[in-house]
Amino acid sequence: MKNTFGNNVSVTLFGESHGEMIGAVLDGMTPGIPVDEAFIAHQMNLRRSANAMLSTARAEPDLVRIVSGVFEGKTTGTPITFLIENTNTRSGDYAAMRYIARPGHADYTAEMKYHGYQDPRGGGHFSGRITAGLVAAGAVALTALKGKGITVGTHIAACADIQDRPFGDLAADLAALNEKEFAVLDPNAEAQMKAAITAAKTEGDSVGGVLETAVTGLPAGVGEPWFDTVESVLAHILFGIPAVKGVEFGAGFALADQKGSEANDPFRASDGKIITATNNCGGILGGITNGMPLTIRCAVKPTPSIYKEQETVDFDKCENTPLVIHGRHDPAIIHRARVVVDSAVALALCDLLVTRFGTDWLMK
Amino acid sequence: MKNTFGNNVSVTLFGESHGEMIGAVLDGMTPGIPVDEAFIAHQMNLRRSANAMLSTARAEPDLVRIVSGVFEGKTTGTPITFLIENTNTRSGDYAAMRYIARPGHADYTAEMKYHGYQDPRGGGHFSGRITAGLVAAGAVALTALKGKGITVGTHIAACADIQDRPFGDLAADLAALNEKEFAVLDPNAEAQMKAAITAAKTEGDSVGGVLETAVTGLPAGVGEPWFDTVESVLAHILFGIPAVKGVEFGAGFALADQKGSEANDPFRASDGKIITATNNCGGILGGITNGMPLTIRCAVKPTPSIYKEQETVDFDKCENTPLVIHGRHDPAIIHRARVVVDSAVALALCDLLVTRFGTDWLMK
Amino acid sequence: MKNTFGNNVSVTLFGESHGEMIGAVLDGMTPGIPVDEAFIAHQMNLRRSANAMLSTARAEPDLVRIVSGVFEGKTTGTPITFLIENTNTRSGDYAAMRYIARPGHADYTAEMKYHGYQDPRGGGHFSGRITAGLVAAGAVALTALKGKGITVGTHIAACADIQDRPFGDLAADLAALNEKEFAVLDPNAEAQMKAAITAAKTEGDSVGGVLETAVTGLPAGVGEPWFDTVESVLAHILFGIPAVKGVEFGAGFALADQKGSEANDPFRASDGKIITATNNCGGILGGITNGMPLTIRCAVKPTPSIYKEQETVDFDKCENTPLVIHGRHDPAIIHRARVVVDSAVALALCDLLVTRFGTDWLMK
Amino acid sequence: MKNTFGNNVSVTLFGESHGEMIGAVLDGMTPGIPVDEAFIAHQMNLRRSANAMLSTARAEPDLVRIVSGVFEGKTTGTPITFLIENTNTRSGDYAAMRYIARPGHADYTAEMKYHGYQDPRGGGHFSGRITAGLVAAGAVALTALKGKGITVGTHIAACADIQDRPFGDLAADLAALNEKEFAVLDPNAEAQMKAAITAAKTEGDSVGGVLETAVTGLPAGVGEPWFDTVESVLAHILFGIPAVKGVEFGAGFALADQKGSEANDPFRASDGKIITATNNCGGILGGITNGMPLTIRCAVKPTPSIYKEQETVDFDKCENTPLVIHGRHDPAIIHRARVVVDSAVALALCDLLVTRFGTDWLMK
Repeated sequence: MKNTFGNNVSVTLFGESHGEMIGAVLDGMTPGIPVDEAFIAHQMNLRRSANAMLSTARAEPDLVRIVSGVFEGKTTGTPITFLIENTNTRSGDYAAMRYIARPGHADYTAEMKYHGYQDPRGGGHFSGRITAGLVAAGAVALTALKGKGITVGTHIAACADIQDRPFGDLAADLAALNEKEFAVLDPNAEAQMKAAITAAKTEGDSVGGVLETAVTGLPAGVGEPWFDTVESVLAHILFGIPAVKGVEFGAGFALADQKGSEANDPFRASDGKIITATNNCGGILGGITNGMPLTIRCAVKPTPSIYKEQETVDFDKCENTPLVIHGRHDPAIIHRARVVVDSAVALALCDLLVTRFGTDWLMK
Repeated sequence: MKNTFGNNVSVTLFGESHGEMIGAVLDGMTPGIPVDEAFIAHQMNLRRSANAMLSTARAEPDLVRIVSGVFEGKTTGTPITFLIENTNTRSGDYAAMRYIARPGHADYTAEMKYHGYQDPRGGGHFSGRITAGLVAAGAVALTALKGKGITVGTHIAACADIQDRPFGDLAADLAALNEKEFAVLDPNAEAQMKAAITAAKTEGDSVGGVLETAVTGLPAGVGEPWFDTVESVLAHILFGIPAVKGVEFGAGFALADQKGSEANDPFRASDGKIITATNNCGGILGGITNGMPLTIRCAVKPTPSIYKEQETVDFDKCENTPLVIHGRHDPAIIHRARVVVDSAVALALCDLLVTRFGTDWLMK
Repeated sequence: MKNTFGNNVSVTLFGESHGEMIGAVLDGMTPGIPVDEAFIAHQMNLRRSANAMLSTARAEPDLVRIVSGVFEGKTTGTPITFLIENTNTRSGDYAAMRYIARPGHADYTAEMKYHGYQDPRGGGHFSGRITAGLVAAGAVALTALKGKGITVGTHIAACADIQDRPFGDLAADLAALNEKEFAVLDPNAEAQMKAAITAAKTEGDSVGGVLETAVTGLPAGVGEPWFDTVESVLAHILFGIPAVKGVEFGAGFALADQKGSEANDPFRASDGKIITATNNCGGILGGITNGMPLTIRCAVKPTPSIYKEQETVDFDKCENTPLVIHGRHDPAIIHRARVVVDSAVALALCDLLVTRFGTDWLMK
Repeated sequence: MKNTFGNNVSVTLFGESHGEMIGAVLDGMTPGIPVDEAFIAHQMNLRRSANAMLSTARAEPDLVRIVSGVFEGKTTGTPITFLIENTNTRSGDYAAMRYIARPGHADYTAEMKYHGYQDPRGGGHFSGRITAGLVAAGAVALTALKGKGITVGTHIAACADIQDRPFGDLAADLAALNEKEFAVLDPNAEAQMKAAITAAKTEGDSVGGVLETAVTGLPAGVGEPWFDTVESVLAHILFGIPAVKGVEFGAGFALADQKGSEANDPFRASDGKIITATNNCGGILGGITNGMPLTIRCAVKPTPSIYKEQETVDFDKCENTPLVIHGRHDPAIIHRARVVVDSAVALALCDLLVTRFGTDWLMK
């Protein structure tokens, strides 16, 4: 379905970096969910993260205009349309770069797919800017989940080879993270990561990292195996986020080196509830939630736009050419991508929950 | 869509471990693809991998019966149905274990979803045995791809913390792997992995690993961003395979520690073609193929069925109980999972290619 | 999705008229629904309708074998596979007719789509016989609906220009129809229709008709506008039935000649419930059920296989040729199509209900 | 998928009658299709049909603003977003009518589905006004089809029991119709229909009719049986149009009274092409196009908003109440619905063609 994700709760993304508007349509959301414009703005600001040291975000404030699907401050159950204007575009000189494939970018692959008709300005439809629509729609999804006692939060588990501390008390950690612009749990790690980003900026280079997400409060029994498992559905939307090149659940790739006796999570009866003593499975067994927290890790590649000279091709002439990229570029996007991941996870979970429990379930 | 995967080429899986039959329906496959029963049997045998040392596979030979969609040895373009009988089931004593949640298995989550109506015998619909249908359908998909010059192959990149050598000459490596029952490139690593599996068996334990897949011959320009990117579609089906808990493309999680200047793959013009000097992106930029080989890695958790005593619960009584699992269980499934991954990748690629180029494209 | 219908409850059809087996996979059905093999056989017999006067059905009894998704007599919630063997095929001489387009059949269009790879024997995948899988799956859907107080039934409203009486007391009419092999309410009309079918048979010709379906007991508020309206979803599956060339809801085409003041159904409060005084809308307003009975009418074209000589082409040579069809052919299929319509309607409604109320809703 | 239609070319509708904006997102359209704003405006005007005698359309001109997916006047292949502002809404007094179910409208069924959260002003999301987005997207689809030699056109075959002449020379008829605001072929019929509409207006009543559509230039071999037949896909979208209560193809319901020997269309070889002598099947056999013109007829119910007093209920109090509707209402919408039907047909055909021939096929 190309730019639409989801079966029963779906989101459609549209727009180009330097077009008139970008945005999203969120359909199938349960009616009656409060639409909190301040929270949407908060999330948009986390994505924009205009910290001058770490980002070179556009000056534009990413105001979200909701033009359908909300009545008297609540979702109606019909499609919600989020519009964001592109007010600060500078695309005068794209023609010179029209056929130069920036390494790590979609310029060449878009040409192969769209035959030159794609909008090349600022990355066009492939710009990370398009995630703004996902964040706007995700804010409503996060509010819906919150109304059911479900919390989503993400920290920068690693950046430039510096590790954050692992999740501890999830309630406290998620609450803290969701207020932070730079979502790291350990202040020392935060300082080192920021220094590494600043250093990369100085070098004209960029860094990546790992985002780790936890979700608490999900009921057991959610997920639609074999093919719409929780892992499949979450990975599907997460791999739609431009820089994500790896997704793992629970202990993930670390399970490859474990024995079964280490990897298996022992079940426990606890106060009439069934839990597991460890959570190597990340809250998912057989593709279905087990009532424990979901844990998800996404590998985020370093920003491909760097200032160092690179080797590349002019794909019109099929000739090698050196490339120096100008303009504003972030030395890291991982601190901004974190809210995109939260949004994507929330949208996918709303879809799975409404699939499982019906279109009204997210109502309080 | 639960047990159906794919938009234009789709596969539907059905069956339970101890039911009458398991199988698959493959729909949307281009007409005219040769259906090679010997190749299907070869693939089924790779999945079954009845090596007495490493596996305790059922004695049954997994004969595939095709009852629709093939005429005069070729696909018709209508649904192809693959049936495999369950001839060697021993499920007499499942009642005693009915409410005991085996750690790492779907027993408890299935109960939460299906309310006790699920078939509990031998893991029911959650048994790895259900992948046999995927392998049968995948064999046709692999044949279709081969007809267009596209080759898929997978090696055990790691097992029990032993590493295989990386891919080298892909043409030679894939050809060799696709003949091997235990798909490792380095003979030393192979011997060590087998020894580790045997050791785990002796301990009543199990091991996991990492499967690395490469695909050569794909045209550039395939993939449907934002949400049906090559990564999204492949990860979706790969996370449907029971033991897979992580998926990464190209350098994947290793990109998190790289600088942009290391991670970006320089483009090169080479004999009138455009290639990249490195392949950290795994052949995918912006969710679209760039014409370089796809590379995919899957984390496979250790088999959850082990002979060591484990702690768990009776979820009917909500009481803790120790558990000792009897019956036949593999100390490793990674060498068998490899053909499941090849099959899943082939099915997803057929879907993306037919989406991109139309229903006839896979015809020679 | 080609041979798969439905979003949350889906059915996949497979098979060819003279292949080994035909059948269906029903996925997403709520667990715990009783699977009544006698009822399935009853429905299969209605479809087969071996009345020697009116049909020339195969001698084979269409035994349905369920090989997955049912445990201890109830649905498990996982895919249910229905298999029906083709035991009585006579396809030795199809080669002579290989390139002759039978008028009213899919021979030529299948050639255009499948390029000669389609199975041509007995109409292949386009045979009305493939509806047997739909009827088997539909029997489970009808049982599920019945458990929630929802009844589906169809009469032959017209055949060969003879009209049945309109629906009256729906509870009584539907109960009576669901026991009848030739589903007509007015005995006089029934006798005349049968006589007309017999006369057509004598002439080597065939007749069509109109099937009218009613559904009682549906809750209000079901349907997913704008595009998954009740009408859209029902019409989608009904137009999959080979002979159906028209579908209307409520007064349907008759509304075209009415004034708004006639067509509008006045609402009424009745014993604390809201009903309408008339039902010209067929129980659907804005694409959503209003709690009144659904009424649906399907135009069924006359069987295209007739014994009279016809003009046609050899599409291989692109030459005109006369055609005389031999073999067994029904002078009417409308009395057999009626149970196919019931099945299709039931499947579509299960999908809409599970979409609206969640995967467990059909449990009692 | 609720408000999204289509598999490979999809359209998503959003908006409410008195909300800020309505519109559509068109995704999957082949890149390089010219986007002719004058043609879009022409189509919008046909839908708006501000003829003072026959309609009481809003004064607003339905300006379409395209904010994504078009670059240098052509489609890019990425989502195209069409926005239309609601500039002339008068909804101050909706509260008094909040719980009054207008007969023939979705007020009550929307309440049952959306639990009071729906936007009730002017019919909200159920207003015929939402078809404006469909017409805008459909204009691009019509242009794409035209580039491949495929023409769509519709006439008012019947209105208020007055019949237009049947289609004759399709090339001439479709060309003429596509320039007409009131699409009738026979000038006498046109005058009578207009008089009947004016008479209905005088009475405070409304009329309906039948729209007949023809499509020329389609290749044979398009359609995805069993369930995505041409009939299924077209009916699915057509029944999404609010007033449509019946859809038939070719001779449709008239086939019910024909013999097989009358209904079957004889094939003919003609100048190396295969055609049929008649077209009772409406260009579709086995759900697949046969290369002859498609013919489709839609029953359009009379506008439910009438000025005559009606009986209805207050569904909050569950009490009977008389109702007199005020405000602007059309005595007929059939002449406006015709361009909605053309648009819906064009969108569905683009989806089927791109499914069949790939994402680039609509390029010239």
